[in-house]
Amino acid sequence: MNNLETLFIPEEIKNTELAGKLVVIIDVLRASSTVVTALANGCSGFIPILSPDQAKKKAQQFKKERVLLGGEREGIKIEGFDLGNSPREYKREAVKDRTIIFSTTNGVKTLEMVKDAHRIIIGSFLNLQAVCNYCTNYRGGILLICAGKEGKFSLEDAACAGMIINSLKDVFPVACQQADADLTARLLYEKFGNNILEILQTSQHGRYLESIGLEKDLKFCSQLDFFHI
Amino acid sequence: MNNLETLFIPEEIKNTELAGKLVVIIDVLRASSTVVTALANGCSGFIPILSPDQAKKKAQQFKKERVLLGGEREGIKIEGFDLGNSPREYKREAVKDRTIIFSTTNGVKTLEMVKDAHRIIIGSFLNLQAVCNYCTNYRGGILLICAGKEGKFSLEDAACAGMIINSLKDVFPVACQQADADLTARLLYEKFGNNILEILQTSQHGRYLESIGLEKDLKFCSQLDFFHI
Repeated sequence: MNNLETLFIPEEIKNTELAGKLVVIIDVLRASSTVVTALANGCSGFIPILSPDQAKKKAQQFKKERVLLGGEREGIKIEGFDLGNSPREYKREAVKDRTIIFSTTNGVKTLEMVKDAHRIIIGSFLNLQAVCNYCTNYRGGILLICAGKEGKFSLEDAACAGMIINSLKDVFPVACQQADADLTARLLYEKFGNNILEILQTSQHGRYLESIGLEKDLKFCSQLDFFHI
Repeated sequence: MNNLETLFIPEEIKNTELAGKLVVIIDVLRASSTVVTALANGCSGFIPILSPDQAKKKAQQFKKERVLLGGEREGIKIEGFDLGNSPREYKREAVKDRTIIFSTTNGVKTLEMVKDAHRIIIGSFLNLQAVCNYCTNYRGGILLICAGKEGKFSLEDAACAGMIINSLKDVFPVACQQADADLTARLLYEKFGNNILEILQTSQHGRYLESIGLEKDLKFCSQLDFFHI
């Protein structure tokens, strides 16, 4: 039987076996949504690096016209970088055939922590069905990991996990009923259903992004199954 | 305005300001319920110590007839200890006028992590109204901290936090609507209402305790407002 488990906070990874598992990293606002958009728009690679200085250093290994630096601190583009962390910036004309070196706090840190997993995929509302299809075909344990916000629980990531669990409940009926976090995530799905924009507007980080003028990012990230990767 | 925030996992404490705050530690199954029971039954003191060996050492500082060693590992009484972590053992005839030196994993570890808080109180279903009264009268920020289980989210602690938040929603109307974890905890309250035994029987740790023959502890811990301390 497939085992499915949700972690609300990356720190929980410390107490979790990763070997042989499929890890789904969920950082809806906005790293996951940005990565998925860039890959769907034909970027040739996506390299996550925690420190902006190391990201700049890494970029020197590529031809200048082949690489882009992307990332944020507190929602705002890093100085000297080409792109921020708004998925709307990662259009086809900007990213096609370019390698993106990417630095954000929560999402990249979470990726660093799961290096030992068997497979890592990126989860967001934008590619939810594709994630569910991949999980359905995976033979082994599955971990849904919410990136959260500054080491704390975040509503939008947990709700996205809940929607994934809900989609998988017929495939893994037992796994989806067993764990405390799975049950709670599904409860969020039951509350909000497919009203994803409402989830993002309700969440603390969503309200913060709105307050710095990024309400269009909320709308973009709320599009269910916009991409199929 | 009073600020109220819920942390689902003790690791979140690292990213949280404790100074000046009232911390409510919630470890329903079973450390919180045991501490509250012992205090209500007249123990003269409760000293939490992480390591069983250090607990034994500490006990030597007391007259033998004045001290009891209590605690568990994986739900079971520690070898050489007087009591386990079942609140039903902490009867008046056993604990009155005794100091209890207490060692459990999740609850005690969480207590260690909040030493810098201004006030620390213990939350459980057994003393929920008393906790709410204390919070109502506190002038300053309030943190509800779920002890969880082995560093992971636990349903029963989050649901207890949700019930506290629900009780305080008229006292701190804004604070109770703002945070992602508060909203999610209240959702658990809305799902289960006052069916506390159902929460405990649904939770992973509750099911584990039942599997080792401790279903009576679930019934005991599910009694709402059994004590008024």
